Amino acid sequence: MKVVTQASEMMAALAEHGRPRVLVPTMGALHQGHLALIHRAHVLAGTQGTVVVSLFVNPIQFDRAEDLAAYPRPQEADLAACRGAGVGVVFAPEAAAMYAADRSVTVQETQLSRSLCGAARPGHFDGVCTVVLKLFLLSGCEMAVFGEKDFQQLAVIRRMVRDLNVPVTLISHPTVREADGLAMSSRNVRLSAAQRADAPRLRQALLAAQAAFQAGTRTPTDLLAVVRQVIGVSGLLRVDYLSLVDAESLESVERIERPALLATAVFYGDVRLIDHIRLQP
Amino acid sequence: MKVVTQASEMMAALAEHGRPRVLVPTMGALHQGHLALIHRAHVLAGTQGTVVVSLFVNPIQFDRAEDLAAYPRPQEADLAACRGAGVGVVFAPEAAAMYAADRSVTVQETQLSRSLCGAARPGHFDGVCTVVLKLFLLSGCEMAVFGEKDFQQLAVIRRMVRDLNVPVTLISHPTVREADGLAMSSRNVRLSAAQRADAPRLRQALLAAQAAFQAGTRTPTDLLAVVRQVIGVSGLLRVDYLSLVDAESLESVERIERPALLATAVFYGDVRLIDHIRLQP
Repeated sequence: MKVVTQASEMMAALAEHGRPRVLVPTMGALHQGHLALIHRAHVLAGTQGTVVVSLFVNPIQFDRAEDLAAYPRPQEADLAACRGAGVGVVFAPEAAAMYAADRSVTVQETQLSRSLCGAARPGHFDGVCTVVLKLFLLSGCEMAVFGEKDFQQLAVIRRMVRDLNVPVTLISHPTVREADGLAMSSRNVRLSAAQRADAPRLRQALLAAQAAFQAGTRTPTDLLAVVRQVIGVSGLLRVDYLSLVDAESLESVERIERPALLATAVFYGDVRLIDHIRLQP
Repeated sequence: MKVVTQASEMMAALAEHGRPRVLVPTMGALHQGHLALIHRAHVLAGTQGTVVVSLFVNPIQFDRAEDLAAYPRPQEADLAACRGAGVGVVFAPEAAAMYAADRSVTVQETQLSRSLCGAARPGHFDGVCTVVLKLFLLSGCEMAVFGEKDFQQLAVIRRMVRDLNVPVTLISHPTVREADGLAMSSRNVRLSAAQRADAPRLRQALLAAQAAFQAGTRTPTDLLAVVRQVIGVSGLLRVDYLSLVDAESLESVERIERPALLATAVFYGDVRLIDHIRLQP
């Protein structure tokens, strides 16, 4: 496994490896969810291709300095996990290798990123788009694998690929969950024992709303009330947003006539967790 | 020569042609300046490579609707010129083939584009960056040739290539001029006979300032006064901007201690012309 830390060394490192190149962009702190993406990348790359994993905690997508500082960075464990998963090339740059001090060019998305996480985290998705485009261009990948857990990120990147004619095929992979239903996230390790025990409530609330939907409940008000009822019980979490949006435009809907997403972000202390569920009329 | 009008057809059209691919992005209305860029592209492409020319009047880089509407579009003549110049692939899309109605992703440059043409034309360089990145990615070019006449455009694109890790080598080509010194531009055909006869004044004014510089004049105030004196005589033109800037940062300078540019944009009626000259201390 080749570990690259400088952008300028990527081309030489990749030249020794076959095509297609399949990129799995991560911020490190790899868990089973990431490993599922890497496994999917191997299937896509086939026997001749190369799986490329990036480990980079992207500073420009953080809106809160304390969240950036607290983000876990277990690099030795990450490299061992990549080695164990048969990754061909790991790209693990320092921030200075990705962003010049006088950098002045970014990618902006102005539609899909206005709601949900984008509303709560100004600049977040522009930072995501910018780093993802850089990683696409540095790796020269034909395909890239993203987790569906970050569905808004996926929608924004899909839009970027379309609007900028980026020659990369996006592959999405279902959310991987703990046995108790909590969506895997690098932030989960920062939960206290009590918070961790409470956190499956998020998934339970969304499942309860989905069940209500399937039983005939159709108005956003009633569905959101079901979610609030389940997540509101323990008092350990604070809701950041809770929205019912069109699955494509990510805009709020009043009536569910096309596929919709029930999406939420909550805080346990200063740890922010997200989850969503699909409602198919 | 292959003429492509749909983005989706570019890959197939280019697959039949060799590498390297050298792109010359233009807005059409080709003149001798463009042909010099195409010739340069041929030298870079060599016998195996492919010269790709784009003909596209990019709507999102125009700040004035009347300028966009008036921009010349002699497509038959442009295609004939490309054919005559041995171009391999021409990409001549309609605006709808480049920009989806619900497009929401653009490239932004916030430093080099603030001065000069950027100050006078809000959004212009973001439109330029966006379309140039799209053309780079659609053509999969290894190299692209740009005229030095649009020096700020070149500086902004160079910054974009650096900041977004775009795998394209930029080649700049000196400004091509009419016999009387007027920089070639697609907009020159829109000048009246009297305006056209007056227009070489622009170049003369910059040369006069360069001569004054070489003779020892060093302060911006004095140098700009020389320019104003020469261009102010006829009364046919209106100065849009006239600036002395650092050749790299494009920021105004008070003392010329590093290479600088004396740059100006003027209006003859509603036709906007630009030119610049380098001052090397």
